[in-house]
Amino acid sequence: MQSWIAKAQRIGTLDPEWKRKARARLNEQTRPMGSLGLLESLLERLVAIQRKEKPSVARKRILIFAADHGVTEEGVSLYPREVTKAMVANFLNGGATINALARQVQSDVRVIDVGVDADFGREDRLVHSKLGNGTKNMVVTSAMTSLQLDQALLAGWNQVHQAHEERIELLALGEMGIGNTTAASAVIAALMQWPVESATGRGTGLGDEALQNKIAIIKKAHTLHQASFDQPFEILRTVGGFEIAAMVGAILAAANLQIPVVVDGWIVSASALFAVKLNPKILDYLFFAHQSDEYAHRALLQALEVEPILNLSMRLGEASGAALAMGILEAAVRIYNEVATFEEAGVANRTDAPRTEKTLYD
Amino acid sequence: MQSWIAKAQRIGTLDPEWKRKARARLNEQTRPMGSLGLLESLLERLVAIQRKEKPSVARKRILIFAADHGVTEEGVSLYPREVTKAMVANFLNGGATINALARQVQSDVRVIDVGVDADFGREDRLVHSKLGNGTKNMVVTSAMTSLQLDQALLAGWNQVHQAHEERIELLALGEMGIGNTTAASAVIAALMQWPVESATGRGTGLGDEALQNKIAIIKKAHTLHQASFDQPFEILRTVGGFEIAAMVGAILAAANLQIPVVVDGWIVSASALFAVKLNPKILDYLFFAHQSDEYAHRALLQALEVEPILNLSMRLGEASGAALAMGILEAAVRIYNEVATFEEAGVANRTDAPRTEKTLYD
Repeated sequence: MQSWIAKAQRIGTLDPEWKRKARARLNEQTRPMGSLGLLESLLERLVAIQRKEKPSVARKRILIFAADHGVTEEGVSLYPREVTKAMVANFLNGGATINALARQVQSDVRVIDVGVDADFGREDRLVHSKLGNGTKNMVVTSAMTSLQLDQALLAGWNQVHQAHEERIELLALGEMGIGNTTAASAVIAALMQWPVESATGRGTGLGDEALQNKIAIIKKAHTLHQASFDQPFEILRTVGGFEIAAMVGAILAAANLQIPVVVDGWIVSASALFAVKLNPKILDYLFFAHQSDEYAHRALLQALEVEPILNLSMRLGEASGAALAMGILEAAVRIYNEVATFEEAGVANRTDAPRTEKTLYD
Repeated sequence: MQSWIAKAQRIGTLDPEWKRKARARLNEQTRPMGSLGLLESLLERLVAIQRKEKPSVARKRILIFAADHGVTEEGVSLYPREVTKAMVANFLNGGATINALARQVQSDVRVIDVGVDADFGREDRLVHSKLGNGTKNMVVTSAMTSLQLDQALLAGWNQVHQAHEERIELLALGEMGIGNTTAASAVIAALMQWPVESATGRGTGLGDEALQNKIAIIKKAHTLHQASFDQPFEILRTVGGFEIAAMVGAILAAANLQIPVVVDGWIVSASALFAVKLNPKILDYLFFAHQSDEYAHRALLQALEVEPILNLSMRLGEASGAALAMGILEAAVRIYNEVATFEEAGVANRTDAPRTEKTLYD
């Protein structure tokens, strides 16, 4: 995994000069200073990532990584495993929630099969990067082999390089995989060194008893594998998932290629956390779309000291929160590019600012 | 004011049958039940307001009511009064933040002068409903006369009737008026019977001393007028503003005409609160765009038991939060209209639901 560590470590701090430029432009626009709140800090980062006088997120892409999970044998989800396959077909047919949202925000959608337990044949609307028919059951053995982990990381990495070649300006990451809140909780609890109870929620809607079972299953998996948890990639390999690993690769590529990434909910946050643990500077490239309704997501966002863009109590996945947040980011970019300055509009600025005839703006 | 009370009182409860239909449709779509969180309750109300199988918010309009305030003589704002006029010109020229956002969400914008201290001449991009060159100073006398109050309410009422004739499907209300956080705080504190300190914030960015002055000014106005505060319209007349009253009229019209209304921040919330005090059923027609950064907005939203759509720490006004929320509502409507059902997509529903070959969905 040395090459992945190296890819993470070469990501640097955002250019402070571009952040300063963005701040100056925002302060010149005809508004009380700071009145756009969170949008202003989002814009500062976005401008510093893109390093353009006129930032743009017109060319958007949503990447949905889909995979199955061996741990579904343990009854950790309300839904049968076949739903992963059926939902992938639904994505390809344009019938899912994310398709409606992608049409709304004018983004394209790529669905990448990194390990769905189904044969999609020569379906050419799907990206075929299958690493197996789902991971292995983490309470019995490691979820994946080292080779599979490397290939999963590469699948995500390659998707983002392709997006870069196609001049994509804003990426959103999402996922589909019955059982993947379990894998995400197992990864997050291990990385954060949280008790499993503190990192485990109801997923698609588990009742109390099923939640207790899910917690017990993750604890069992941790007991089996924790001897190697001092090596982060071993956490990903033993209790992670193909889609979670692929999204780590995607995030590493995006930060390397200076493409802003919108992080969806709980499962994508597991990938984001992993990347940030490799190199905290990666956090600057990530835009956390929303605080999902999954139990520990709020605590995780707080631990990362990030402010989510939305908080709509959603718990769907499939990049749905990320797509909505893309729309907010695009609105913010439009403000940045189009609003007149105090000088252009002939609007007087605040009365407590030093004022001469030539400096109507701060 | 009897006719306005009558207009408020004839607004009825949303049709429970349409809410039930909306809930059934959401539950049939290919998602875990309830996984869209707040969007689902927004959609239930929107469908019940519009009473259509396929709701639509394609035809959007943002109404910005602009006016000046006599209380600015007391130094309650960082900005000089002329900024109201200059920002109205900025709106008309398309250079303000709200113009960028309106272009983003494809809404038209109407600016209504209900009392700006400026002569806009025959500017035909502006709606001329001027009731004076600003209100009077509330610490000296009543902000407006009874006739002005009636005309302000009517100005808002008429704008919404015109929007209805033009088949507008979603309205957003916003405002511009240097000094109007003071008027809004004075109205809200009186209506909620809150101490003035609990209802007063920093507006466009007052320092500590200026905030204390603003609180003292509102207290002085309350002392002068509070003998008549048992009559709500007297609160609006003595310490309100032309734009605040106009937006009350707009809300009453929208609820009567069954048009959903997006409420922007602190000042529009004063109008919304007033309308809801006249008839609590009006709350069903209101979509609170965001929790603004103005000090007491959170407490007011909590008192109304409403969940704002966004929470971006914005404090700009001019319908900026409302425009962003319009985009979220349009995305929600698209989901409602376009996402496939479990049956259509051949996706199995949750395993704990009763299942036969014919009932794959809940």
